[in-house]
Amino acid sequence: MSGRVYLVGAGPGAADLLTLRAARLLAAADIVLHDALVDPETLAMAAGARLLNVGKRAHRPSTDQSFINRLLVRSAQRHKIVVRLKGGDPMLFGRAQEEIEACRAANVPVEIVPGVSAGFAAAAEIMASLTHRKVARSVAFVTPAVAKGLDSDDTWANAAAAADSAVVYMGKREAARVRDALIARGVSPSCPAVLVESASLGNGRALGGVLAELDQLADAAGDGPALLLIGDAFARAAADHRLNALTAPQAAAS
Amino acid sequence: MSGRVYLVGAGPGAADLLTLRAARLLAAADIVLHDALVDPETLAMAAGARLLNVGKRAHRPSTDQSFINRLLVRSAQRHKIVVRLKGGDPMLFGRAQEEIEACRAANVPVEIVPGVSAGFAAAAEIMASLTHRKVARSVAFVTPAVAKGLDSDDTWANAAAAADSAVVYMGKREAARVRDALIARGVSPSCPAVLVESASLGNGRALGGVLAELDQLADAAGDGPALLLIGDAFARAAADHRLNALTAPQAAAS
Repeated sequence: MSGRVYLVGAGPGAADLLTLRAARLLAAADIVLHDALVDPETLAMAAGARLLNVGKRAHRPSTDQSFINRLLVRSAQRHKIVVRLKGGDPMLFGRAQEEIEACRAANVPVEIVPGVSAGFAAAAEIMASLTHRKVARSVAFVTPAVAKGLDSDDTWANAAAAADSAVVYMGKREAARVRDALIARGVSPSCPAVLVESASLGNGRALGGVLAELDQLADAAGDGPALLLIGDAFARAAADHRLNALTAPQAAAS
Repeated sequence: MSGRVYLVGAGPGAADLLTLRAARLLAAADIVLHDALVDPETLAMAAGARLLNVGKRAHRPSTDQSFINRLLVRSAQRHKIVVRLKGGDPMLFGRAQEEIEACRAANVPVEIVPGVSAGFAAAAEIMASLTHRKVARSVAFVTPAVAKGLDSDDTWANAAAAADSAVVYMGKREAARVRDALIARGVSPSCPAVLVESASLGNGRALGGVLAELDQLADAAGDGPALLLIGDAFARAAADHRLNALTAPQAAAS
């Protein structure tokens, strides 16, 4: 008889942005396999569980995905409640599918508990709706992070350029490439852009400018997880949080 | 001295998919202005608050937005903790910006509490990641719902067609239009499509097929809130939940 694996969204960072269901599962968990960026206060909710950091961080040595898959299955063979705690929502940029398939292949029951994705916390932080009745009816969540078999910029950049609003995950180190790819696809260099760092965490901050300045926003940001928000819906937020250090005056960018 | 307005995401439906912060605010609220579709169990958490249904539902008579804006400001002049409880996340298709601006104009402090958007609950329900390392690096959240000043299909349909995965909100009654707009933009008629109804609620269900059959999926659905998920990332889910009543065989649709 196998235990059950729960792929649980840890939310954007702040411990109280966890869902009630996730908190209940953490409290009942026998073992928790968690990402590197999960808040210590969130992990403390799993009082009776063994905690295993299987975190992958961009540009750092990371736990192999197939190892995580095997570990999930093995944990379910030994424990009743196995929580796989993933930053944000498990179903967005989280490699959940590979973990789901691994559990299914081993006949381990698996359940998904959705969470608040960082993009929504970023929008909340800068008080800018991702869509706005008058200026935006679509938002694209994209990542330029490279994966094998998807080496062209087409897939994510076309989507970001076509949507009224774009939210770029894991894009801080690729800010110049994001800027160039969007401008090449017809997005105005003077389109409002905001970098939101450590959204929902106490030290969260926003850096505003225009698309042409995206690399400067990234250079000025710190080490926290960051999202890039691009689109007319962010015009006021970009002005409110305009980074004083920007070298190019806004008018010259268009 | 004015009270504070909290625009709070109620999540996708299930009461335990509310965040801990939202639950705490509801328990402390003096007054709650809520959407029509919020779960009674969620509203029950606001034990000490006056509850006001200011719900708007598509295709039904609804509360005027400017009335809601005025009511928010007036409530903050009389109460300390005013919760504006919105389905899903407040910053996606929720007209939050208008409510934020109304509060700002009246010098009422306002804060946003993000929530789990229905798209993530739908992905969880059908066990399909919105993005998949090998097939999808972008997802577009769009709505074909018509707003004044945005009467062409271009804004939302271009974004949905360009993204690897598309999640269409408030699209059930417009399924034939969504199908036609996406096919006209080059999306394959045989692209996997799933309609997820009442995601996260006990009576949730999924109807799978291909893009060409989107209108049939909508016709077969019930009255619950529904999302349309379109893209190769949903291939397995579309097959798992394939609607038997579909008249067009899958092969003939391509």
